[in-house]
Amino acid sequence: MHLGAAWYPEHWNEERWETDVRLMKEAGMTVCRIGEFAWSTMEPYEGGYHFEWLEKAVTLLNRYGLEVVLGTPTAAPPAWLTHRYRDTLAVDEHGRTAVHGNRCHTAANSQTYLKFCRKITGEMAKRFGKDARVIGWQIDNEYNRVDYSENSRRQFQHWLKDQYTSLDALNSHWSTAYWSQTYSNWDEIPLPVGAHNPGLMLAFKRFVTHTWREFQKVQIDEIRHHSLPSQWITHNFMGWFDAFDHYELTADLDFATWDWYVGTGHHDFTKTGAAHDLTRGFKRKNFWIMETQPGWVNWSGVNNTLNKGEASAMAWHAVAHGADAILYWQWRSAQGGQEQLHGSLIGADGNPRPFYEEVKVLGENFAKVSEVIANTEPKNEIAFLYSYDARWSINGQKHHKDFNSIDHLMRYYSPLAERNISVDILSPLANLSGYKIVVLPALVILPDVTVENLTRFVESGGTLVITVRTGMKDTHNSLFDTLQPGKLRELAGAEVEEYYALLDPAPVHFRGNEQSIEEKIIEGKSEMWAEALRPLSDSTQVLAHFGESNGWLDGKPAITLNPVGENGGKVLMIGAVLDSKAQSFLIERILREGGIEPIYTEGKTGVEVAKRVGKDGKTVTLVINHTREERSLDLKELAGQDLLSGKSLSGVISLLPYGVRVLI
Amino acid sequence: MHLGAAWYPEHWNEERWETDVRLMKEAGMTVCRIGEFAWSTMEPYEGGYHFEWLEKAVTLLNRYGLEVVLGTPTAAPPAWLTHRYRDTLAVDEHGRTAVHGNRCHTAANSQTYLKFCRKITGEMAKRFGKDARVIGWQIDNEYNRVDYSENSRRQFQHWLKDQYTSLDALNSHWSTAYWSQTYSNWDEIPLPVGAHNPGLMLAFKRFVTHTWREFQKVQIDEIRHHSLPSQWITHNFMGWFDAFDHYELTADLDFATWDWYVGTGHHDFTKTGAAHDLTRGFKRKNFWIMETQPGWVNWSGVNNTLNKGEASAMAWHAVAHGADAILYWQWRSAQGGQEQLHGSLIGADGNPRPFYEEVKVLGENFAKVSEVIANTEPKNEIAFLYSYDARWSINGQKHHKDFNSIDHLMRYYSPLAERNISVDILSPLANLSGYKIVVLPALVILPDVTVENLTRFVESGGTLVITVRTGMKDTHNSLFDTLQPGKLRELAGAEVEEYYALLDPAPVHFRGNEQSIEEKIIEGKSEMWAEALRPLSDSTQVLAHFGESNGWLDGKPAITLNPVGENGGKVLMIGAVLDSKAQSFLIERILREGGIEPIYTEGKTGVEVAKRVGKDGKTVTLVINHTREERSLDLKELAGQDLLSGKSLSGVISLLPYGVRVLI
Amino acid sequence: MHLGAAWYPEHWNEERWETDVRLMKEAGMTVCRIGEFAWSTMEPYEGGYHFEWLEKAVTLLNRYGLEVVLGTPTAAPPAWLTHRYRDTLAVDEHGRTAVHGNRCHTAANSQTYLKFCRKITGEMAKRFGKDARVIGWQIDNEYNRVDYSENSRRQFQHWLKDQYTSLDALNSHWSTAYWSQTYSNWDEIPLPVGAHNPGLMLAFKRFVTHTWREFQKVQIDEIRHHSLPSQWITHNFMGWFDAFDHYELTADLDFATWDWYVGTGHHDFTKTGAAHDLTRGFKRKNFWIMETQPGWVNWSGVNNTLNKGEASAMAWHAVAHGADAILYWQWRSAQGGQEQLHGSLIGADGNPRPFYEEVKVLGENFAKVSEVIANTEPKNEIAFLYSYDARWSINGQKHHKDFNSIDHLMRYYSPLAERNISVDILSPLANLSGYKIVVLPALVILPDVTVENLTRFVESGGTLVITVRTGMKDTHNSLFDTLQPGKLRELAGAEVEEYYALLDPAPVHFRGNEQSIEEKIIEGKSEMWAEALRPLSDSTQVLAHFGESNGWLDGKPAITLNPVGENGGKVLMIGAVLDSKAQSFLIERILREGGIEPIYTEGKTGVEVAKRVGKDGKTVTLVINHTREERSLDLKELAGQDLLSGKSLSGVISLLPYGVRVLI
Repeated sequence: MHLGAAWYPEHWNEERWETDVRLMKEAGMTVCRIGEFAWSTMEPYEGGYHFEWLEKAVTLLNRYGLEVVLGTPTAAPPAWLTHRYRDTLAVDEHGRTAVHGNRCHTAANSQTYLKFCRKITGEMAKRFGKDARVIGWQIDNEYNRVDYSENSRRQFQHWLKDQYTSLDALNSHWSTAYWSQTYSNWDEIPLPVGAHNPGLMLAFKRFVTHTWREFQKVQIDEIRHHSLPSQWITHNFMGWFDAFDHYELTADLDFATWDWYVGTGHHDFTKTGAAHDLTRGFKRKNFWIMETQPGWVNWSGVNNTLNKGEASAMAWHAVAHGADAILYWQWRSAQGGQEQLHGSLIGADGNPRPFYEEVKVLGENFAKVSEVIANTEPKNEIAFLYSYDARWSINGQKHHKDFNSIDHLMRYYSPLAERNISVDILSPLANLSGYKIVVLPALVILPDVTVENLTRFVESGGTLVITVRTGMKDTHNSLFDTLQPGKLRELAGAEVEEYYALLDPAPVHFRGNEQSIEEKIIEGKSEMWAEALRPLSDSTQVLAHFGESNGWLDGKPAITLNPVGENGGKVLMIGAVLDSKAQSFLIERILREGGIEPIYTEGKTGVEVAKRVGKDGKTVTLVINHTREERSLDLKELAGQDLLSGKSLSGVISLLPYGVRVLI
Repeated sequence: MHLGAAWYPEHWNEERWETDVRLMKEAGMTVCRIGEFAWSTMEPYEGGYHFEWLEKAVTLLNRYGLEVVLGTPTAAPPAWLTHRYRDTLAVDEHGRTAVHGNRCHTAANSQTYLKFCRKITGEMAKRFGKDARVIGWQIDNEYNRVDYSENSRRQFQHWLKDQYTSLDALNSHWSTAYWSQTYSNWDEIPLPVGAHNPGLMLAFKRFVTHTWREFQKVQIDEIRHHSLPSQWITHNFMGWFDAFDHYELTADLDFATWDWYVGTGHHDFTKTGAAHDLTRGFKRKNFWIMETQPGWVNWSGVNNTLNKGEASAMAWHAVAHGADAILYWQWRSAQGGQEQLHGSLIGADGNPRPFYEEVKVLGENFAKVSEVIANTEPKNEIAFLYSYDARWSINGQKHHKDFNSIDHLMRYYSPLAERNISVDILSPLANLSGYKIVVLPALVILPDVTVENLTRFVESGGTLVITVRTGMKDTHNSLFDTLQPGKLRELAGAEVEEYYALLDPAPVHFRGNEQSIEEKIIEGKSEMWAEALRPLSDSTQVLAHFGESNGWLDGKPAITLNPVGENGGKVLMIGAVLDSKAQSFLIERILREGGIEPIYTEGKTGVEVAKRVGKDGKTVTLVINHTREERSLDLKELAGQDLLSGKSLSGVISLLPYGVRVLI
Repeated sequence: MHLGAAWYPEHWNEERWETDVRLMKEAGMTVCRIGEFAWSTMEPYEGGYHFEWLEKAVTLLNRYGLEVVLGTPTAAPPAWLTHRYRDTLAVDEHGRTAVHGNRCHTAANSQTYLKFCRKITGEMAKRFGKDARVIGWQIDNEYNRVDYSENSRRQFQHWLKDQYTSLDALNSHWSTAYWSQTYSNWDEIPLPVGAHNPGLMLAFKRFVTHTWREFQKVQIDEIRHHSLPSQWITHNFMGWFDAFDHYELTADLDFATWDWYVGTGHHDFTKTGAAHDLTRGFKRKNFWIMETQPGWVNWSGVNNTLNKGEASAMAWHAVAHGADAILYWQWRSAQGGQEQLHGSLIGADGNPRPFYEEVKVLGENFAKVSEVIANTEPKNEIAFLYSYDARWSINGQKHHKDFNSIDHLMRYYSPLAERNISVDILSPLANLSGYKIVVLPALVILPDVTVENLTRFVESGGTLVITVRTGMKDTHNSLFDTLQPGKLRELAGAEVEEYYALLDPAPVHFRGNEQSIEEKIIEGKSEMWAEALRPLSDSTQVLAHFGESNGWLDGKPAITLNPVGENGGKVLMIGAVLDSKAQSFLIERILREGGIEPIYTEGKTGVEVAKRVGKDGKTVTLVINHTREERSLDLKELAGQDLLSGKSLSGVISLLPYGVRVLI
């Protein structure tokens, strides 16, 4: 477990450095990230490399016991580079060339730019690849730019040729007879600006993924060529950001990290946990928080501060979801530059800001638990399948302006989080063995391998939950020639007779489990979207119907359950997007069907309980009060020793505002 | 009377075709629209024409008894064309060239593009012009693009030279001394981007009209050169869309059609009737609904479905307003392409969707009434004069952000529709003989010929209603040198002392007809706009005054009435934009002055009653329930035989939700 | 004192002219502004100058006793000029070249354009510079355009070289090591588009200031070369408009004028006074209203009219704040042109509009007071320091989306205006002798000379009020290496421990002056922003604390007061942005500390009382009712002779709606 910050020694006189590093040490920091954005200091003129200052910074950090993460500086090239080589600058969708001076103004697929990136990374790797004080590398920073230059267009056409081999295949998969889009030559194919053919739009997103993966690969290769085996390589992603497929990008990395910013407002652990779980799911491994806000940011509408204590609870929350390090961004703001007003640990006057004290306490506490938590990770029985293809497809054709793939996923995630049930969020191509429940949140694009995996999963006794919009399209973003959920229809024992975007909510009459002694009936509402289901087999049970709505939905099945095989497998089809009360009722039913019980049902009160498990089966339980008030809870079977206070705790205990217990 | 759909056989294997056509036939369809958007299938490479497939489709449709409307495919050129001939692509007002792959990305006035359009239309006409199975042609699809290329600018300058002959005339009509805009050379004249000189802005709109008319003319000429006299030529317009003057465009067509989409929300017959009446007014002839939504669309914010039954009521509503055909768009969605999620009659699995059944019932009912309704049309005693020039002028200078020409027209239209009083919407140049009342809704630009027509109309005993903003400018968008209503001042017996955009509504004290026994006084509000009127003759009566407002308006006349001549002619000047209750009071007064009585006063309850009349004077009455509830009404003198049920009806009858009666 | 209007004789036939001038005279007008925008009439073809018509207009005006202000026409060049010399057209930040036909579409720093501007101004000056009928010149019109052309970029780079001498200095002041922005060559420096380095952004604003100043200088030099010493030179600015530093621009002018438009809504004298005070502060001299609306404008969302009488009250309000002339824009609208619907005095029919009558009464009243008011000006004891640098800095990094520098200034201005306490608004570089209170409203950038001036001011017994965000940055927009308020920390006896953008208001517990007999405690709220203060000396008193908020602020000092020296000097630090009730309480305290009493405490009732003082100490008091209702007030020591009615007034008097008294 690491605690640290991003530090930019190049902004300051060397006389100041030691004060900074001493203050880091005093705050309990164990790691420091340096180097990214320092290209103009590393290579002030073309071919003139200067790493002496960086060497000194590494030495100083090492002297105070801090390990070093080195960032490659390719997200911010020097002015001489973009000025001399104009083809390195990205072009936006309106044909405008980027201006130097912000970040990410370069085209990741510019051959010229790739050449310079390879060179600077290689030089860094030569210098620090064998330096054990550097424990790992971060490639670039927050990949995000999409280039719409003519160069990009040509590369896209070449990439399409690799993917589709023939124009006939492409024309067919994209239905280009529609609106006379038929391509008779590869070089006729445009980049999509605004809405366009769904096949083309999806292909372009994949091309962007390819572009960034190649860009990353160039740097990984340079580092690997020179580096110690112990040095790992990662990148800092941005949670739900969706400009490319993160499963592909992380395939070439040792583990994933992400930059967690709240911006305006406050942290809600029943939602933010999902972004941690997503990042953990990229590699199915623990991750780092490479950046997080020391109080506030500078780029949001209202850059309010986190409450006193809130950042600390957030840090523990991240740890609970598999974070092995928390690094604050940034240590101190440069006197100039776009982010002068961003939160930091050190103030304009060079002294610790109030926030520094909160980190210092965190440092002390991290030190107490570090050894026990090392080599533990979250273990879950529920998986959500999350697909960039599906999200892109829906974003391109929302059909209801308020339909958002992530919000939809959250309708299933949050009620589980409130019950302290953790989940894994995985690629639709992931192996599903070991799970009890799998949820498909609006998985509009359904690959064949997913169908195979899910069939195996259900036949082995798993409970599959298919939500609205799932299984409508193939991997070319083309409609299946069956109704939803496509090749899962038979497994589901039902299909979608018709889907409806809703202007007004539609009533849903929900029946309790008829096998239970007391029969419950609740009334809910389906919001935004509704799918009239049609059972396809006698075994299919209807769990809920739509009430009087637009005439078409009235009385149609809204939720079905189909038992599958002899191992207790089941498929639930959910044709409604339920209001929160009804959704809560549904979640209880799903859990019952899947045979899962919450580890501690206190989530709604703002207290999170989560476990990390070691390879030896040993469990660490984190109990986190995410509220500004004191909370008490009955530990019951969680009773144990609290590593922070050193005391043994059992029965009803009290948690201070934003307070934490780490029990073993 | 026709029922049909748009079908794109080029999206599908020929093996599927017969199933589709059989299902059309079974739905009661009698017509099918094909061909538009199929250019890349008709001419897959330059000069290589392939119509065999189209021939097969026509033959198949004919075999099942469906007539064919053939669309020219010029709204969606092939990729090889725009790629090879870049000057065919339109340029937007920001100077960006359009990207291939959506529709209408070409410049209608590109000489190169016109050449290709002429060629493909000519080839189609050679092949199908003598084929009686094709009953008519649709040119292009929903004209809409405006091109801002340098080519367009040069053509605009040439066109201006034709219009104005001399720069002196142009400079004078446009008051170019203002802001030093004086042009000393034709090639100095720019295209208007954003706000610009009103004269230039209006001229540019007319130039766009000219451009589209020429574009259309090229194709009409090709078709007429080869076609049977029985084949008609039309275009599918878009209701209130205003990029060009529809009166000019329809001058060269046999009749008009339009594409009626609700988008988000639901149909309101007291408003949508106006778009039908507008389209009927283009040629003063019945029209077709060339496209309408089978449930929902894919391009709106919330693509909700029409309620069950609503589409059927909409179809009858269109018929009541003069539609002779209803075609759904589209039969089935392509598997790819931008409109995958648009409503259709056939689902992704190739089977009828729920909506198909509603159309089938409509098909049965159309068959029952078709013969009787043929050759009948709406006949009205009220005309509204609607002018594109006036609308453009106001849109360029709204003066009050919420002042919308169409909303303003609706303030007069809807209360009439609620009283089941139908109107004609006509060009300001139209002959007005036969009308009792003529309304000028914000006719800011007043041509001399309109003044002459209106003078003749009033002198012959007609009642003229002049509303706010009327008669302020000449046909160059230049202020008259008199106050409003310009050359109608004398006829009106009043002028506008001053106009005011209102921040807050102004009170209006309305006096009842003093000749009536009981004198009514009502209080209303003028919203957004007010005009202080000044009577110009002794005969002018003041029907309403403004109350205490901004100081300037207080006590000024708001509505005047001037009796004209010996035939009972009258002119009402309405200086207020009344709230709905006061407007309703005003409408009653106008009807009384004009001597018109509603045919059935049940409109406010959601039931529409409308008549179509044959040349022989025979009348068909449509009674349409536009609500989701059952409605009852007393037929009184409308009693007669219901063609749908075959029963004779009289007295109080009941209408099912969205139910219809067709009485003779 | 002058009354007048802008007149465009070039829009009309000469036959009409005399009618117009006669009507001006009859309205009591004494001045007329002509010439600006008439370039195409003055120089219809390159090098062909035609001033005969202008000569005639001047002669005619003179014949009717009106003096002439001549505008140079450079805000609207002829079409032949921009068409032939494309490099005169401005380029916007998206790289688009402006289109001819609006105004200000030229680049003020185009060498070509400057050449033409010099020429036309020189020709005008030769013709009218010795003509005493022309009393003064207006350069151009409402400077506003910013040019982003390559030419502009090159000039910016040259200007930076002049400012910074070396790249090392620039790199250091801008902290360009940040994000690798380091410049190794002047020509690498970009223009800032969107957010950019704060140093670069601020420098660019100053460069734009420089550009306009040079543009203005070229014309001033031409005029001065030919003109009578009596002819003054000015420019019409736009109040709070902030594209350039108005203190610099006005340095080369004889006095300032501004164009006062309300747009949508109505006049609020507790706010609009500030714009007058700002304009007066540019030169610390009286000013002119060069344009104001005759009823309404044409460019706002709702172009409502001013209430009857409101414009008259506005005119007196401007006079009260130091206006020596009121000119309406415009006399009459051209028949064509973008501003057809703008308010005017003459209608489309050539006759006076209702508004003309209001001006006529004003003309009569101006005549009555003109002699007495001449050579008087406002005299105030409170100064606000307003800085363009500070405003630009905050706008570039708002940190809270609702934080607006002018609104913040108004939180101090309006409560004073409600108490009829006038203030001066001055440059931060201004000499402060003679003031009792100085307020720094969010003066984020604090120049050394300001620190020196303020220190001297406080040491001499002044009361300094430092508000939030003050003293954070140096004049390069770079963070100080101390906490706020920078070099004022010692004087203030306090510093800002931490600043916080607030999502929710924070409570502020305010203590009354403990020296007073009754101790008041009030509860307020700090909105948007809060600064936890840290006293630095024993003498510093805490006047208010923050209540329970985000945890960090809780209990921290919110307002402090530090007595300085032996002359009664004091510094108040205000760490809160108070709600209006608490702010009112604070203002009372500040006034008490500064030893200032209101001249008449009736402001909240809508009655303004203001004084102008002559060099001889004689005072004229204006009492203006800014409401639509009658108001009465007790004159007390203001009793005297009313110049308008000629009567002596004392005790309780009554004011008509929008009524005025001018007492001596």
